[in-house]
Amino acid sequence: MMELQKREKSGLHLEPIGVIHSCFKEKFGIPRQPGLVKHSTATIELFPPFNREEMVRGLEGFSHIQVLFLFHRAVAEGWRPTVRAPRLGGKKRVGVFACRSPHRPNHIGLSAVRLGGIKITGGVCLNVSGVDFLDETPVLDIKPYVPYSDSIQDASEGFTGTADVGGGEARMIFFSGQAAAFCSDYEEGNGRPLHLLITEMLKHDPSPRSQRERKTEFGMLLWDVNIRWRMEEGRVVVERIEPVV
Amino acid sequence: MMELQKREKSGLHLEPIGVIHSCFKEKFGIPRQPGLVKHSTATIELFPPFNREEMVRGLEGFSHIQVLFLFHRAVAEGWRPTVRAPRLGGKKRVGVFACRSPHRPNHIGLSAVRLGGIKITGGVCLNVSGVDFLDETPVLDIKPYVPYSDSIQDASEGFTGTADVGGGEARMIFFSGQAAAFCSDYEEGNGRPLHLLITEMLKHDPSPRSQRERKTEFGMLLWDVNIRWRMEEGRVVVERIEPVV
Repeated sequence: MMELQKREKSGLHLEPIGVIHSCFKEKFGIPRQPGLVKHSTATIELFPPFNREEMVRGLEGFSHIQVLFLFHRAVAEGWRPTVRAPRLGGKKRVGVFACRSPHRPNHIGLSAVRLGGIKITGGVCLNVSGVDFLDETPVLDIKPYVPYSDSIQDASEGFTGTADVGGGEARMIFFSGQAAAFCSDYEEGNGRPLHLLITEMLKHDPSPRSQRERKTEFGMLLWDVNIRWRMEEGRVVVERIEPVV
Repeated sequence: MMELQKREKSGLHLEPIGVIHSCFKEKFGIPRQPGLVKHSTATIELFPPFNREEMVRGLEGFSHIQVLFLFHRAVAEGWRPTVRAPRLGGKKRVGVFACRSPHRPNHIGLSAVRLGGIKITGGVCLNVSGVDFLDETPVLDIKPYVPYSDSIQDASEGFTGTADVGGGEARMIFFSGQAAAFCSDYEEGNGRPLHLLITEMLKHDPSPRSQRERKTEFGMLLWDVNIRWRMEEGRVVVERIEPVV
């Protein structure tokens, strides 16, 4: 056993097959799991020699893919045996193998996301949505999502099932005049559904629970814009959206 | 981009967190996907320093886990851009990223399996079932199977959906007197449901399609026994089961 362990340790390297260009430019605001925010989008760009059309042939028939990736920002921080589970209010610790934390041995992440399309022009790019990827995430593997073995409908879900998914009761989201106008212009300019994306994200309150009592004003980057919002009595007001300069 | 690729290439190693002790001792006979053969079982033994009780705390509440592992036998054979898909009769080639072949870049496998129990006695062992693991497979990560993001019930499945799952029409499985008696003794001795396992496996014909016309006698190892069966006119006869000496 130890011999195997040693051999693998010395002999195996990871080589990214591609990189993710995601709407999420920073950790803050990333949904805790894929699929929660349907209009979050990303492009997976395959690197040579993995970016040949034949390597994704047949993938276009699948509606979803499994993406294995590297939690690249967590690598330098190492791993921890236990993690404060955000789903348990950040108070109780669970084992790292009992949660999906980035701070895990080997730092490999797994997300099932919707495959919107495949672009083949001098390379291969996959358009995906419902993502929880940080921008610039290295990709280790792409697999088709095969429902008859990947989708276990009667699976029970431990502590995640009893906690809330998105941070409590449904929230009303309001946009200021400036914010609403910016969204319209932005969508017209490049087709990205900014208004929908912000609405979905703020419904799943991205602010850390530890900050919710103390702080009422928040900001985050999304694609190339900066968004500022305010929390007041169970509703969210998106105050200002500005391009990143 | 290339800078990122280079950095990851040189800096990242895989370190197995454990090893799988599986009923499948050879490639032949392994189900094509997890979940197909419910009574196939395995034990995942975690290596130090990953084998502390706290690292799996909370996992006991989940009915299923995602296991990331290394296709260790395929590593030396490298990867191929396209693969003859067994689900398409082995005739049509699909891209390696459009199937779950072991001969893929980074050689990482993914299987969702049922978690039967966790044994904590001077280490950590996970008992799992519905497996498609080869014995001695190195494990890279264990994650809880979280239905609300892992189970996509409306996913569509490309070419796998139109092909048969287990190799054609349902088969009748017969056991010879010797084989039936051996199963009873074996189950009494160590509790492993050998009769059920063999029945489930042979229902999903493990013989390669290329051999089905030419060959009628087959054999395989399962745990520590050798099984021989014969195909005749749509039925399977398990002729002999013997302990491996």
